[in-house]
Amino acid sequence: MLDIRVEKTTSPKPIPDKDNPLVFGTIFTDHMFVMDYEEGKGWYDPRIVPYAPISLEPSAMVFHYGQEMFEGLKAYKTEDGRTLLFRPDKNIERANNSNRRLCIPELNPEDFLQAIKAVVKMDEAWIPTKEGTSLYIRPFVIATDPFLGVRPSNTYKFMIILSPVGAYYPEGLNPVKIWIEDEYVRAVKGGIGEAKTGGNYVASLASQVKAHDEGYSQVLWLDGVHRKYIEEVGAMNIFFKINGTVVTPKLNGSILPGVTRNSCIALCREWGLPVEERQISVDEILEAAKSGAMEEVWGTGTAAVISPVGALRFEEEVMQIQDGGIGPVSHKLYDTVTGIQTGKIDDFMNWTVEVR
Amino acid sequence: MLDIRVEKTTSPKPIPDKDNPLVFGTIFTDHMFVMDYEEGKGWYDPRIVPYAPISLEPSAMVFHYGQEMFEGLKAYKTEDGRTLLFRPDKNIERANNSNRRLCIPELNPEDFLQAIKAVVKMDEAWIPTKEGTSLYIRPFVIATDPFLGVRPSNTYKFMIILSPVGAYYPEGLNPVKIWIEDEYVRAVKGGIGEAKTGGNYVASLASQVKAHDEGYSQVLWLDGVHRKYIEEVGAMNIFFKINGTVVTPKLNGSILPGVTRNSCIALCREWGLPVEERQISVDEILEAAKSGAMEEVWGTGTAAVISPVGALRFEEEVMQIQDGGIGPVSHKLYDTVTGIQTGKIDDFMNWTVEVR
Ligand SMILES: Cc1ncc(COP(=O)(O)O)c(C=O)c1O
Ligand SMILES: Cc1ncc(COP(=O)(O)O)c(C=O)c1O
Repeated sequence: MLDIRVEKTTSPKPIPDKDNPLVFGTIFTDHMFVMDYEEGKGWYDPRIVPYAPISLEPSAMVFHYGQEMFEGLKAYKTEDGRTLLFRPDKNIERANNSNRRLCIPELNPEDFLQAIKAVVKMDEAWIPTKEGTSLYIRPFVIATDPFLGVRPSNTYKFMIILSPVGAYYPEGLNPVKIWIEDEYVRAVKGGIGEAKTGGNYVASLASQVKAHDEGYSQVLWLDGVHRKYIEEVGAMNIFFKINGTVVTPKLNGSILPGVTRNSCIALCREWGLPVEERQISVDEILEAAKSGAMEEVWGTGTAAVISPVGALRFEEEVMQIQDGGIGPVSHKLYDTVTGIQTGKIDDFMNWTVEVR
Repeated sequence: MLDIRVEKTTSPKPIPDKDNPLVFGTIFTDHMFVMDYEEGKGWYDPRIVPYAPISLEPSAMVFHYGQEMFEGLKAYKTEDGRTLLFRPDKNIERANNSNRRLCIPELNPEDFLQAIKAVVKMDEAWIPTKEGTSLYIRPFVIATDPFLGVRPSNTYKFMIILSPVGAYYPEGLNPVKIWIEDEYVRAVKGGIGEAKTGGNYVASLASQVKAHDEGYSQVLWLDGVHRKYIEEVGAMNIFFKINGTVVTPKLNGSILPGVTRNSCIALCREWGLPVEERQISVDEILEAAKSGAMEEVWGTGTAAVISPVGALRFEEEVMQIQDGGIGPVSHKLYDTVTGIQTGKIDDFMNWTVEVR
């Protein structure tokens, strides 16, 4: 149990109009959770303080050597006024997996959950209620030693900030167009691809810019070794429904083990759909699209939950999926996951955790 | 030409005793250079200000998405009191190559050099003079948009900080023991390996910790695709002298194009030594070490300049090099490069730039 010190803001900000669409990731609530780490002392001084800039030495290691880890999950308001988290234990477990790979000290899972609950509770009034909205929760750790030289830092800052968000795709559950990248690589086996850390995202920018310029909203990565097996999308895992079977790349060390991915696999199995986690080559995708065996394609991630994919482009070939429409499994997954998250349907998977 | 605003410190720090060995990367001078960037406005407000912490939003993109670039070079005091930079144009060129890969706006090369010279001049009194010491110069750029979401930032901060440093290896030009990594991967072709950015360094920590625990001071990386070709060391490029020929991995997109590497190749060629930049497998290294064909191994990098390698370990095999001593080419390279850098020998390669 953390003994969390609380310092309330004396100048609360206006809470954005809940009925207006919110731009993702630009507005932050009144408070944040902060906890420091020092080698030999461990994590100390857990506190909830007014949301404010932080001050760091220009030599702070995070600015130079990328030792940083983040997570992303959401809190939802139910119609009867309860506040629900969706599988926070999964994010906490993944955070510690990332920490281990990045030589960042681990966080006690119970303390982590307590911290999330405490700061969400503090700013509960900020959780939007309109359909498709939620409170995005961003826990992260940064290395703070004022030291130039490559080694794990001896000091860190763990923070949780909160951002009320609208639907990720303001136009609603519209199919996205995805660019299969054949030049750049995001991550490779043995690297940091399965950790949630800045280095993987900066690696993706050049490709993303190129895809945007071509009118594609996201990039689908191929593996870095053979450059032919499907990995994941910029901020989503990817699923294909081919000939009645749901197929998704297996966790191989270079892709992020998504919480939404895990949830979709569980739901599909629950519904009796065959699910395969395995290697999938881009050739297999091309062929399935051509032969008509490709029934649906969708991405999964906390931000958008389910993103139906309407078109995939690989080199000069453009594959249209579902005539650019939304497939029934994508739709059912979206309804079920968001239904559980917001308390609209029974939590038959026991996934939600109430913030009291 | 930048119009650099100068705000001098009112509380100068004591300058460390120049005859005492300085720990690398822990002490910073009185001033720093700072310049901001805003989309549409470009780089603006170049200034030299007192060295001090910087304040950033917790949502600043650098903390989450790793959009950061750094460089490292040194200023040296000559016996006759001049201040020399070593090939700063090479670092500036590499910085802009990194910037392009990382979707960070480029810096005007002349402005960049002017900024380095101006801040070094300002804190010239800090440059240590003892043998093996220098002023380490760390230019870096960080993404500062307060935004959660993956895209290039629209605002950045470019800074140059200065640190007086002693010899990188306080024990002098002693051979290091190097661990050839067979589990983790630093970077892969198509990724960000040739950019100088945090993500590559955080990826290396777990391996470095493992190697240290085994008594090895640095890690030698293999390529991420075949896991058998030599890439580079943690913060150095690597050279082998095999049967009279100097061999170093060619620049293939996943290793950092070192300035010291480039300088050593040029010097060896100048001296009439055959130099090959090519693929080198770990098997070739093992075989050359066994047959006695391996004459010398050394690393090259700004921090240590030349690091002779006394032992290499790959899996269960330990290769002793030069009976753990220092080879003649390593030694001559060290003497020549450091001689040019410090003005002790004639700059026959035209590599130094004086700060006036
Ligand atoms: C690279 C990447 N892959 C996949 C995902 C999906 O993971 P999750 O479902 O846990 O949000 C994300 C982000 O959220 C991501 O950043
Ligand atoms: C990964 C890596 N390789 C090689 C080098 C050597 O480059 P340079 O000679 O420019 O210092 C460095 C650092 O300085 C480095 O960080």
